[in-house]
Amino acid sequence: MPPREEAEGAGRSLNHPKPEEIRIENVLHALSDPIRLRIVGELDDRHEDMACVAFGLPVSKSTSTHHFRVLRDAGVIRQQYHGTSRISRLRRDDLDTLFPGLLAAVLQAANRTP
Amino acid sequence: MPPREEAEGAGRSLNHPKPEEIRIENVLHALSDPIRLRIVGELDDRHEDMACVAFGLPVSKSTSTHHFRVLRDAGVIRQQYHGTSRISRLRRDDLDTLFPGLLAAVLQAANRTP
Repeated sequence: MPPREEAEGAGRSLNHPKPEEIRIENVLHALSDPIRLRIVGELDDRHEDMACVAFGLPVSKSTSTHHFRVLRDAGVIRQQYHGTSRISRLRRDDLDTLFPGLLAAVLQAANRTP
Repeated sequence: MPPREEAEGAGRSLNHPKPEEIRIENVLHALSDPIRLRIVGELDDRHEDMACVAFGLPVSKSTSTHHFRVLRDAGVIRQQYHGTSRISRLRRDDLDTLFPGLLAAVLQAANRTP
C-alpha cells in the first residue's frame, strides 16, 4: 500500500525518465518549440508548481497536453496530480546536474527572442 | 561580377540565415539529433573547416547531406564550396553572440553522453 502515491492521485501517477535515462537529444528536441519554450520559461519565472491551465497557452487542450507530455517524457518537467489537475515543475536540479549551464543558456536565449 | 563568389564555387553559393534570422527553436531542433550533435562536436574539436566526407558518418550520403542542411538552415554551420567539396565550419561567433553559453553547454552535454 503506497500512501504517498495514493495521496497524490489515487494511482494515476505519470511516467518520468530517471535521471540516468535523460538524453541530451531528447531534451533539445523538447525545447525546440516556441510553446514548450514558453512553458519552461514560465515555470522558471515563477519558481513554483503550476497547473497546466495556469499557462494560458494559445493552443487547444489536446495540443497543450501533447506539449507537456513531450517535456515530461524528455525529463524537462515533472508532473503529478493534485486532485484532477496536473501540476508541473521544472526538473531543474536533474538538468543542471546532467547538463550544466544548458537550461540557463536556453532560458536566456528564449527570453531574448521576441 | 563577384570574383570572390566565383573563386569559391562558380556561383554555387549556399543559403544561410543572417544572424538576426537565427531562431533559438531552430538551433535547438538542429542540435536534437545524435548525428548532428556528432558533426557539431567534430567541428568544435578540430577548430577548422571540414569537408563532409571527412566526418565518416554512419549514414548514407543523402542522409548526411540532409543533416548538414538542417544545421546550415538553422544557422549552426556555414558551408561553402571548395571545388566540388562542401566545407563546413561552426558559426561559433554568431551563436555565442546570440545565445551566450548555449553551444558550450550543448557540446559539454554531448561529450558526456556515451
